[in-house]
Amino acid sequence: MAGSTFGTLFKITTWGESHGEALGVVVDGCPAGLSLNEEDIQNYLDRRKPGATKFATQRKESDSVEILSGVFEGKTTGTPISMLVRNTSQRSADYSEIASYYRPGHADYTFDQKYGFRDYRGGGRSSGRETIGRVAAGAIAAKALAQLGITVTAYTHAIGDITINMEHFDLEEARTNHTGMPDKEASEQAAQYLKACMERLDSAGGVVACRVENLPAGIGEPVFEKLDANLAKAILSIGAVKAFEIGDGTAAAKLNGSINNDCFCMENGTVVKTTNHAGGVLGGISDGSELLIKAYFKPTPSIFQEQNTVNRDGENITVQIKGRHDPIIVPRAVVVVEAMTAITVFDMLLQNMTAQMAHLEHFYKR
Amino acid sequence: MAGSTFGTLFKITTWGESHGEALGVVVDGCPAGLSLNEEDIQNYLDRRKPGATKFATQRKESDSVEILSGVFEGKTTGTPISMLVRNTSQRSADYSEIASYYRPGHADYTFDQKYGFRDYRGGGRSSGRETIGRVAAGAIAAKALAQLGITVTAYTHAIGDITINMEHFDLEEARTNHTGMPDKEASEQAAQYLKACMERLDSAGGVVACRVENLPAGIGEPVFEKLDANLAKAILSIGAVKAFEIGDGTAAAKLNGSINNDCFCMENGTVVKTTNHAGGVLGGISDGSELLIKAYFKPTPSIFQEQNTVNRDGENITVQIKGRHDPIIVPRAVVVVEAMTAITVFDMLLQNMTAQMAHLEHFYKR
Amino acid sequence: MAGSTFGTLFKITTWGESHGEALGVVVDGCPAGLSLNEEDIQNYLDRRKPGATKFATQRKESDSVEILSGVFEGKTTGTPISMLVRNTSQRSADYSEIASYYRPGHADYTFDQKYGFRDYRGGGRSSGRETIGRVAAGAIAAKALAQLGITVTAYTHAIGDITINMEHFDLEEARTNHTGMPDKEASEQAAQYLKACMERLDSAGGVVACRVENLPAGIGEPVFEKLDANLAKAILSIGAVKAFEIGDGTAAAKLNGSINNDCFCMENGTVVKTTNHAGGVLGGISDGSELLIKAYFKPTPSIFQEQNTVNRDGENITVQIKGRHDPIIVPRAVVVVEAMTAITVFDMLLQNMTAQMAHLEHFYKR
Amino acid sequence: MAGSTFGTLFKITTWGESHGEALGVVVDGCPAGLSLNEEDIQNYLDRRKPGATKFATQRKESDSVEILSGVFEGKTTGTPISMLVRNTSQRSADYSEIASYYRPGHADYTFDQKYGFRDYRGGGRSSGRETIGRVAAGAIAAKALAQLGITVTAYTHAIGDITINMEHFDLEEARTNHTGMPDKEASEQAAQYLKACMERLDSAGGVVACRVENLPAGIGEPVFEKLDANLAKAILSIGAVKAFEIGDGTAAAKLNGSINNDCFCMENGTVVKTTNHAGGVLGGISDGSELLIKAYFKPTPSIFQEQNTVNRDGENITVQIKGRHDPIIVPRAVVVVEAMTAITVFDMLLQNMTAQMAHLEHFYKR
Repeated sequence: MAGSTFGTLFKITTWGESHGEALGVVVDGCPAGLSLNEEDIQNYLDRRKPGATKFATQRKESDSVEILSGVFEGKTTGTPISMLVRNTSQRSADYSEIASYYRPGHADYTFDQKYGFRDYRGGGRSSGRETIGRVAAGAIAAKALAQLGITVTAYTHAIGDITINMEHFDLEEARTNHTGMPDKEASEQAAQYLKACMERLDSAGGVVACRVENLPAGIGEPVFEKLDANLAKAILSIGAVKAFEIGDGTAAAKLNGSINNDCFCMENGTVVKTTNHAGGVLGGISDGSELLIKAYFKPTPSIFQEQNTVNRDGENITVQIKGRHDPIIVPRAVVVVEAMTAITVFDMLLQNMTAQMAHLEHFYKR
Repeated sequence: MAGSTFGTLFKITTWGESHGEALGVVVDGCPAGLSLNEEDIQNYLDRRKPGATKFATQRKESDSVEILSGVFEGKTTGTPISMLVRNTSQRSADYSEIASYYRPGHADYTFDQKYGFRDYRGGGRSSGRETIGRVAAGAIAAKALAQLGITVTAYTHAIGDITINMEHFDLEEARTNHTGMPDKEASEQAAQYLKACMERLDSAGGVVACRVENLPAGIGEPVFEKLDANLAKAILSIGAVKAFEIGDGTAAAKLNGSINNDCFCMENGTVVKTTNHAGGVLGGISDGSELLIKAYFKPTPSIFQEQNTVNRDGENITVQIKGRHDPIIVPRAVVVVEAMTAITVFDMLLQNMTAQMAHLEHFYKR
Repeated sequence: MAGSTFGTLFKITTWGESHGEALGVVVDGCPAGLSLNEEDIQNYLDRRKPGATKFATQRKESDSVEILSGVFEGKTTGTPISMLVRNTSQRSADYSEIASYYRPGHADYTFDQKYGFRDYRGGGRSSGRETIGRVAAGAIAAKALAQLGITVTAYTHAIGDITINMEHFDLEEARTNHTGMPDKEASEQAAQYLKACMERLDSAGGVVACRVENLPAGIGEPVFEKLDANLAKAILSIGAVKAFEIGDGTAAAKLNGSINNDCFCMENGTVVKTTNHAGGVLGGISDGSELLIKAYFKPTPSIFQEQNTVNRDGENITVQIKGRHDPIIVPRAVVVVEAMTAITVFDMLLQNMTAQMAHLEHFYKR
Repeated sequence: MAGSTFGTLFKITTWGESHGEALGVVVDGCPAGLSLNEEDIQNYLDRRKPGATKFATQRKESDSVEILSGVFEGKTTGTPISMLVRNTSQRSADYSEIASYYRPGHADYTFDQKYGFRDYRGGGRSSGRETIGRVAAGAIAAKALAQLGITVTAYTHAIGDITINMEHFDLEEARTNHTGMPDKEASEQAAQYLKACMERLDSAGGVVACRVENLPAGIGEPVFEKLDANLAKAILSIGAVKAFEIGDGTAAAKLNGSINNDCFCMENGTVVKTTNHAGGVLGGISDGSELLIKAYFKPTPSIFQEQNTVNRDGENITVQIKGRHDPIIVPRAVVVVEAMTAITVFDMLLQNMTAQMAHLEHFYKR
């Protein structure tokens, strides 16, 4: 079945394999009149580019984006925006061996079970390169949101056991170091930890956090299209994510209502919450406070240690994976989480515009 | 925007408010030929009925279901199945007071912001009674799955700080005690804890786990309609859920790849995994091992302690909530998690049938 | 697969069989704040009620509607509106005979082929009674459109060979006579013709036209969600419709461009068209002139003449249909066409609100 | 709103403007294991290529397709298939003039009204070149259908007043002459007529018919996703189509039931219909007989005669359109109708596979 389309009004369709000709996305439903050029997209893609951090595959890809439609005289026209990134550093030979067996922790086995065969080169469609289309689309959503004053910011929250200290929070640091952590001290510890993992031919997991600031109240469509429900889907659709939290998340299950409830009060004539355990949603609808979500990533499944597995002939074998692999997914996934969050929030922002007859009267009777 | 429909091929549309005339669901896309009667549905509804546990509202509702269409001579016909439950114990007077202010932790404020006004009686559409439609639909999905040999089982995994011991696992216990915990000892501790919470006029949170057994490999549609992505949405769409995990979930982020990877091996001529950190999915597609997810619920927001909030006139006030409320959501939410899981899995099972041309040739050329 | 839901933002889900317990619809995505009561709906349902014209089945059904959710204190709340009509005059015994054979022109054979068996009572889901849900939902869409100044008006354009004379156009006439024709003279001729058909135990076909007045320019979403494309689907989804036209329709295929092109000119400072061959759309988007569509209905398949067919045992047989049947579908279908048009137009009106970034800035920055 | 995606399980997303960089389509949900190469696609594209007939624009475009994803070792993998055609003969200068005014019969005015501005070069997204993506996707659907023994065949049925004589039917003729008519005599008359139109600086309309042979009974999803309803939408979504018919179409409205009903009889142990007024559907579900639909196209709106219109400054002006334009849309639209029909039928064929529990048991219990 078709599973490569996401969104209702702002709808993205991604395509492409790790070692195919190219990867890309069609963004449909982007409102007309948004200033947009290839640099807007490239800035985002550069954040997920291989080689952007030293904890990433050393595959060389420029990941240069080409906008093929939907923009005219520097502005979106309301028609679908097609974006394309050519693969240039396919080294399929590296992968011919894995055609015959199932790598532990990868989707080789499940793709074979589902489709009868698979494009085994670099994981094909289940490769992390699949996220190129998401990030390109996310750049557009983020730019549109920014024009409305809404900002989406993701960063590395934890790597292995090392968690950032919010008192050290420094976004600039996150954008320039190799871990994506907005905390210099934690980042340095994490770098040490990752170096040790690599020396053991092992990999590590971690947590990406994402905040949406200045989001108006009212976004989200009960009961199935709740803002947090759609964010959960968006985040779990990213490869290697094993858990999603909003606000206090798992910790909320241990709290009492008297603590967990965020009280309302008036502040400068506006309703605000005195705390934000909820993470910015009540009943699946944004409440005007900061939206805060977390994505938990498993360690990279490609490790260079010897592992037990089976081959397509049904024999037990041991394998040692070669190729170019990230020892941790998290630093490059930061921009992917940011992109999926922006896409989801922007789509739901569009959906909210029809919530009241008063809005229609205002719109159509002017 | 329309947010009350869930699913692609097996599609449910729920409706109804806590204190309206009735609540219900239309289940569309159920294959023809499934034996079905009202008792099948009622058995599920009885598990979420108010009063089913002593840790639940004492509102008296029989929650008797009526099937209005889509079943003929004891079998589904392939046409939409409409199911209805009348409200009988509306005590709207209890709620007239809350019309004027915003209860902390509830969706009163966000509904007002979104829609301009709200049905304030018992939370209206954001009430837990909204789940009646989900459970009725889930009963159908679960029955269809059972006919294919697939079972879906949810239970209480934790309440506050008390977590079940898997070595004590006893499903029968979970179905008969007041906590939904499949562990007599843990359940008794949890009951003590809840009693203490109630005495303090406070509420508690907890965790529901759900397993799907005997699920074939191949279910899930990359890249956005992954099985776990849709489950995450399904679970987060349930009121009060703040986190979703699959397999090791948040813990996976702290593991190394060498531990977290599940190795494959042959067992009686079949590919199996020697561990199941993944929780039954690889690349968003079921891998043939047990599916395991967890839903983290916040404490009931309705507590009887005095709380600070604001009213619709923009004044800071203190309130003390009255009415009939559960001190914990979890025990009654068990069947809701089970229902949403069954609905999601069954929908994706249908979607998978078209994955290969070979399937089409087999189907249409016979 | 699920086929009983229609629409994107204003979404309806109908259910129910001719001789089941009840029929109904869930309307989701209706903006909050629309005044609505059961009388608004009943007025529409009464126009399709059996017995509303003498050229209709004499089955006695009051078709009383009950609103079960989504309306509070006389206004829509933005949550799903569930509406129900109980069947009261099921005479299933009439239909037990047809369980065993396939009526020519009916869907008996195709339902059996698709679903393996069918609810044969009165055609089950393929009965004209299925349209109750459409009409109830259409009443809401039409009321919302009316509040924006947009009117939707359907009427009988032709019966057999008799076509209305537009110079005689009188809507009041159409709403009170037995044919639905807004032309007294044509209506009387048509009545004569229908009487003759009935005497010959035969049935007749005809054409329903529908106009939308005061529709703003800009409605419709290229390239697949064009306004006329969605109207075509809406109309062909009505049982017995065999053709759809917009504007000059089939006649346009014989014209030359110099005639068929509608020229633009300025009128009171506004762009208008000097003719309207197009029927109100250009490139699938409304152009601000009157929208005009036509639906062509085949004759009622239930006729009392002897016909050849086969039974479920694969034998050639002759049958003579009994029961209560309309000699023509058209007069009662007028309100169904009006309903489906209103639903489609209103849904697309909502969709258009997000077409420009300027709209979003206006909405979210106020 | 997003309007460039069509289909539910077999889902296509087209993009591109007449004078942009490129046009293309992403085909998602194509079952794995279908043999496919660029030649399969190119053969279809060549049938709609400018210059394929002398009654077409003389714009020179090779319309060479590139498959960028979803195919591996000559077979579809089940992942999205991205296809791209570069524009090579943009002559935007021709169009700079039309930036300032609204061409009669074109979508210039409505795009401006909807989006605030437009890509005016060659009609932008509302150009006939938009159909490239449809045809490329249709080639895949048609190939998959052919593998199941189902054939889709479109041809020109009429041009202006000249209609083909079915007794002369010769498909080979249709594929080689300039009109697409499968009747040499009619084609020659039509060619004369078109020549005369061109001499008068005028354009002509016509009718495309399409047949689907060997379609199994059971395809189509009542009540809104009927086979004919989706075909109507598919056809009306093609630019310049003003009417859709199935079977006898408009003529059915003048028939009596005794004539219009198709009787069933047994033939070689199979249920068949003795006539096919219905055009292959009953109750929106295929009945096993030939599917027959017709699409009515208006004359090309671009004519070289002087026409009245208005400019963006709100002034009445006269214009004379320049550029390269087809005097008739129909011959090149034949393959577009065939493509949209194949896409729709294939999507619904997939949807039908889940109609019965017996199908699921057969599929999942083997």
